[in-house]
Amino acid sequence: MTDAVTVLERCAALGEVSEEGGLLLRRYGTDAMRRANELVGGWMQAAGLDVHEDAVGNLVGVRGDPVVTLGSHLDTVRDAGRYDGPLGVLVAIAAAERTGVPLEVIGFADEEGVRFGTAYLGSAAVAGQFDPEWPALRDAGGVALADLLRGDPQTAARPVRAYAEVHIEQGPVLERLGEPVAVVTAINGQSHADVVFTGEAGHAGTVPHDARHDALAAAAEWVLAVEGTGTVGRLRVEPGGRNVIPGRAIMSLDVRDADDERRRAALTRLHAAAEEVAARRGVELDWTDVGDLPAVAMDARLSELWGVATRLPSGAGHDAAMIATVAPASMLFVRCRGGVSHNPAESVEEADVAVAIDALERFIRAV
Amino acid sequence: MTDAVTVLERCAALGEVSEEGGLLLRRYGTDAMRRANELVGGWMQAAGLDVHEDAVGNLVGVRGDPVVTLGSHLDTVRDAGRYDGPLGVLVAIAAAERTGVPLEVIGFADEEGVRFGTAYLGSAAVAGQFDPEWPALRDAGGVALADLLRGDPQTAARPVRAYAEVHIEQGPVLERLGEPVAVVTAINGQSHADVVFTGEAGHAGTVPHDARHDALAAAAEWVLAVEGTGTVGRLRVEPGGRNVIPGRAIMSLDVRDADDERRRAALTRLHAAAEEVAARRGVELDWTDVGDLPAVAMDARLSELWGVATRLPSGAGHDAAMIATVAPASMLFVRCRGGVSHNPAESVEEADVAVAIDALERFIRAV
Repeated sequence: MTDAVTVLERCAALGEVSEEGGLLLRRYGTDAMRRANELVGGWMQAAGLDVHEDAVGNLVGVRGDPVVTLGSHLDTVRDAGRYDGPLGVLVAIAAAERTGVPLEVIGFADEEGVRFGTAYLGSAAVAGQFDPEWPALRDAGGVALADLLRGDPQTAARPVRAYAEVHIEQGPVLERLGEPVAVVTAINGQSHADVVFTGEAGHAGTVPHDARHDALAAAAEWVLAVEGTGTVGRLRVEPGGRNVIPGRAIMSLDVRDADDERRRAALTRLHAAAEEVAARRGVELDWTDVGDLPAVAMDARLSELWGVATRLPSGAGHDAAMIATVAPASMLFVRCRGGVSHNPAESVEEADVAVAIDALERFIRAV
Repeated sequence: MTDAVTVLERCAALGEVSEEGGLLLRRYGTDAMRRANELVGGWMQAAGLDVHEDAVGNLVGVRGDPVVTLGSHLDTVRDAGRYDGPLGVLVAIAAAERTGVPLEVIGFADEEGVRFGTAYLGSAAVAGQFDPEWPALRDAGGVALADLLRGDPQTAARPVRAYAEVHIEQGPVLERLGEPVAVVTAINGQSHADVVFTGEAGHAGTVPHDARHDALAAAAEWVLAVEGTGTVGRLRVEPGGRNVIPGRAIMSLDVRDADDERRRAALTRLHAAAEEVAARRGVELDWTDVGDLPAVAMDARLSELWGVATRLPSGAGHDAAMIATVAPASMLFVRCRGGVSHNPAESVEEADVAVAIDALERFIRAV
C-alpha cells in the first residue's frame, strides 16, 4: 500500500469519528475529539513519535529535539468533509515516517472555533497567545471552556523553529491551473462588517412605487457594488411578509486580499457606495466594522524547500497564520475537487496526496 | 358628543378587546371575537338594529327589509391598529342611526385570514361562496375550523341588493392629495410568485470572483428589475454564512394593478428578466406562480352616491371584492396618517371620520 493510500484510508477512518451519526462534526473538547486523538495518536506512535496531549488538548507527536513542527487541525465544522484539517496531520505523519529528522507533528484541538467562537485556539496556545479571557467562554449548552482544559493553557506554548502545514485549497484555482499542489504565498487579510439599510415598511398594495423607501432595493444596489470585490453571505429582510415592503435589510460583508492597503481601500470604497445608495434612496445606513485581520506573509526561505513552483495566496485562514506570529511558517495547498470544502463532498485525488507527501518529505529533509 | 368622536371612542374601546395583553390580535372564532361581537352588537341595538350572529359568526344588525348592506370586518392581524376593519363597521352604525332607511350592518368574522389562511371567510359566507373545504382546515394549535361554526355555513348566505364599505386607505395617497376621503374605483388584481435562484455556494475566501455563481448577486439584479413594478417582500439566502458565497436566494413577488392585462404583461416581463439574469450568470431559476386574483371593479352607479369626487384604486383586498361577485358594491377610503396600517400606529383624524359618516349617510339616503 502506498503512503497516499494509507493517508486516504486514515482520512476515511477519522471521518467516521463524529459527535453525531449521519454527519461529521468534531468540536473542541468533545468525546469525538478524544477518540480522534486516540486514533491519530496510535498512527503517530506507529511512525515512531512519542505522543502526548498538551494542556489545551492538542495532540503532539515528538521525535528528538524538533527542528521543524508539522501540523494542522483535527476539529471540524458541522457536516464537514474528511480532509479540511486531518489531511495535513496525516500527510505529516506519513512524511515524518520516511525520515529520521527530529521533528514534531501537532494535531491542533480547535481551529474552526465552532463550539466557542474562538479562532485558532489550538495553535494560539502553542504560539503562547492563548487569550486569558477564553476560559470564561461558554458553549450553547452552558459548558465553560475552562472545564475542558487539562491544565494551565500557557504551558502549551512551545518553541517552534520552523512550521509547515499541508491543507486542501478549499478553492478551485489549482483545478483550473491543472496543478496538484501550490506553495502558499500569504494568508489574505480579512475585513468584516455588518451593514443594515433601514427604510420604511409598508403595504405592497397601497404604497405607490414613487413613495417607497424599500430597504431591499437599496441592499440590492449595494450587493451589486460589492460583487467582484467582496462577499455578501448573509441577507435578512424585515418584516419579511409577502405583501410588505421591506423596512430593513441586514447584511454581512467579507472582503479579503493579500494586500492590506488594497483591502482597506476596497472597504472604504464599499462604505462610501453604501452611503451614496442610502442618501439617494432616503434610507438609513448602519455600518459596523466587525473585524480587520491583517494579511500574514509565509516565510520566503521555507517556501523554497517544498520543490514546488506554483504559488497561491490563501483566502481562508489557517493555523499557519497564528504560528507565523512566532516562527517562520510555510504552507502547501492540495487540489480539491470543485474547490468544495466544509461539505461532505470534499474530495482529493490519491496522486495529488502522493505529490504532497513527497513535497513535505523534501521540506523536512531540507529544513 | 359628535358622531365622529363616538366612532373614535368605540374604536378605542374595541382596540382593547384582544386575545393577548400588550398588543391587539383578534382572530376568527376566538373568545376575543365573541367579546368584540357582544360590544359591537350592543352599539347596533342602541342604533335601533335587530342583532344576531350567522352560522359563521358574522355579526348582523338589521332594520326592516334591507335595501343596502353596510359592512367591514372585526377581526385583525397580530399587533394590529384599531381602525383596519372596525372603523367601517362603526361608521356604518353611526350613519345607520341617522336615517330610517331599511338596511343591515355586518361585522364580518374573518377578513384577514390570520388563523386559517382563508381569504374573506365572513363575506364569502354572506355571498354564498363559503368554500366546502374550509371546515377541514386546522389552525396552528390543531383546532378545526369546523368546530368553530355555529351551523351550516351555507345558511349565512343572504341576498344583498347593494353593498357599501368604509375602510382606511392603508396607503399615503390621500395624505399626499390633501383629501379626507376617496371613492374606490376598483380593487386591484394581484399576482404572486415564488422565485428561487440557485447558484453555487462556496468559501468567500477561496473561490475567485470570476469563478462564482452567486445566487444573491443574481437576486439583487432581479430585485432592481422588479422595483417600480412590484414588491419583493421576502428574500432568504442559503446557506447564509458570513464567509459563504450564497448558493440559493429565495424570494416572493407581489404585483398589483387595476388593469389585469397590464398586470399579467408585467409578470411576463419580470419572469423573462429573471430568466435572462439566470442564463447570463449561470444560475438556475425556479419560478412558481402562486396566485392570480383578477381586479374587481366597483359599481359605477353606487360610486356616485357618496357625493365625493376623489377617486382611487385599492391596492389591498377588501370584503367588498367578495360581495361584488354577487351584488353591486362600492367603497369609501378614509385618509390614515402616513399610510400606516397593520400596525399599532394606525391613526385617523376626527374630521375625516366625520366626512366619512356624512358621505355614508348620503349614500344610504340615495341608494
